[in-house]
Amino acid sequence: MNTIEQEFQAVLADKHPANLYDPISYILLQSGKRLRPKLVHYTVEMFDGDPEQAQIVAMAFEMLHNFTLIHDDIMDVAPLRRGKETVYKKWNSNIAILSGDALAIMAFQQLLRLKCDNQIIMDIAKVFAQTSLEICEGQQYDLDFETQRNVTIDEYIMMIRKKTAVMFAGCVKSGAILMNSDDNTRQALYDFGIYMGIAFQLADDVLDVYASSPVFGKTIGGDIRDNKKTYLYLKALEDADPQQRKTLEELFAVPTTDFELKYKTVRDIYDALDIKKKTEEKIQCYLDLAREEMSKVKVDESKKQAFYDLIDQLTNRQK
Amino acid sequence: MNTIEQEFQAVLADKHPANLYDPISYILLQSGKRLRPKLVHYTVEMFDGDPEQAQIVAMAFEMLHNFTLIHDDIMDVAPLRRGKETVYKKWNSNIAILSGDALAIMAFQQLLRLKCDNQIIMDIAKVFAQTSLEICEGQQYDLDFETQRNVTIDEYIMMIRKKTAVMFAGCVKSGAILMNSDDNTRQALYDFGIYMGIAFQLADDVLDVYASSPVFGKTIGGDIRDNKKTYLYLKALEDADPQQRKTLEELFAVPTTDFELKYKTVRDIYDALDIKKKTEEKIQCYLDLAREEMSKVKVDESKKQAFYDLIDQLTNRQK
Repeated sequence: MNTIEQEFQAVLADKHPANLYDPISYILLQSGKRLRPKLVHYTVEMFDGDPEQAQIVAMAFEMLHNFTLIHDDIMDVAPLRRGKETVYKKWNSNIAILSGDALAIMAFQQLLRLKCDNQIIMDIAKVFAQTSLEICEGQQYDLDFETQRNVTIDEYIMMIRKKTAVMFAGCVKSGAILMNSDDNTRQALYDFGIYMGIAFQLADDVLDVYASSPVFGKTIGGDIRDNKKTYLYLKALEDADPQQRKTLEELFAVPTTDFELKYKTVRDIYDALDIKKKTEEKIQCYLDLAREEMSKVKVDESKKQAFYDLIDQLTNRQK
Repeated sequence: MNTIEQEFQAVLADKHPANLYDPISYILLQSGKRLRPKLVHYTVEMFDGDPEQAQIVAMAFEMLHNFTLIHDDIMDVAPLRRGKETVYKKWNSNIAILSGDALAIMAFQQLLRLKCDNQIIMDIAKVFAQTSLEICEGQQYDLDFETQRNVTIDEYIMMIRKKTAVMFAGCVKSGAILMNSDDNTRQALYDFGIYMGIAFQLADDVLDVYASSPVFGKTIGGDIRDNKKTYLYLKALEDADPQQRKTLEELFAVPTTDFELKYKTVRDIYDALDIKKKTEEKIQCYLDLAREEMSKVKVDESKKQAFYDLIDQLTNRQK
């Protein structure tokens, strides 16, 4: 079977104009984690399915994911992604808008290439469209929360569920649909994806503050700079004494001027309140829930090892 | 049958967050020409098909069209559309990017609601995706041509074919697929849409320079301000004497500073060269080609009257 990079190159061959397709090629051929393709492949492998069909679905989700990155990086004014310049930074915003649009459309086009029962393609397309729309909703909530004064932990979890977790869930559910699994299995895998996705995003929030920069590939402290009310921030607010609470709220209420000072002040409060450890405990809760859902899937446990390994990797993420 | 506005309202009911869906509702419920829905409906009516199914396809294309408007208006820094503030102007660029994304996804979702043979839905979805991608390509060529020194009339026609005409063609072809028409009919209708779409865009280019502002609903002279190498400009270059040619080329090589002066200078050259009349003749050529393709469709001529009326209206466009 061709690698996903070879498949992307084939899809992009002879496409013009260059200003539309070069950014797409640039982002698709970066060495990312390919977590979403893995989720599709692991699901299909678990049921001994056809890896070639899985690859098409895997490509569609990886393209969808990269479309969201191109557009999110414009909105978040993010200069770096995977240690490289973001598309809007390397080209410009207009090119980033348009190549993101084209990539989203190409993602849908992939699904129409599937060689299987039309009803299965339609069902996957419905999951795919619903997933895509919820991701947009999640991103909008994320932007709204930057300026909204009171955000609860529940609201935050709802937001990252949409922004990040539904795509994980969509990947495994689409794999299950491709294998014509029953409704219970589809639901268990969907929920597995949701819990794993939430855990993944919380781990991302920890890394934003505590990662080592060269490995992380993104700007450290970006969430703090952008007044993102992450789990770490909201948990810190909950546990803070009045003085710490006042400092945090004031710092996150106005645009960042002195980033170094703000980052250090916030991190010191997080450290004093043991927020890193508390968040890691929360991550473990979600990973336990994910394991529980996976245990409902009626295939031999040995077939699920790839998923369990992925969960273990998530616990020790560096990027 | 419900109006398209009622259908849009139903699709948008109970959608959150407001910052994502309010802009979508704002643009979808504006009184536009609804030309693309008309093309779908006229095609299905010509074959005595189900208007309810046609309505779903019509909505999908109207949503796709409005998605492109939301994003194009950011790229073109256009403050006005249909006499109202554009989405990016009324909200902001980030909201316009994201609500445009959501609208494109909702357009695809519409197609999955069709109640007909799955193969027909898949075929329409393929046309829809291909159309969407070509529109992105057309928009990128349009942006590229702003700074490209030499653009030929052929390149310009290729660009507007993608940017504007393929959507007209996609509408009528999708209607034909919905009616399970044979390949010759699909192709004739597709080509009809292409020719009509090119004529429509050329008429738009004329209006950009010669429309009366309150009726037009957009800024007069926007193409001249943005150094858009329209048919009028390229034809003028072709027919110009050396002095006129130099003036045009110099004015379109640098960003606009004194818009009033530039607009007047360019319009005077166009008038001296009779460019309006020459463009109108070109429009008539394309409309003749469109009529010819329509004549190949094997239904009673009386059934095609709506299309012929539309062509006549295009000849006398005010907006």
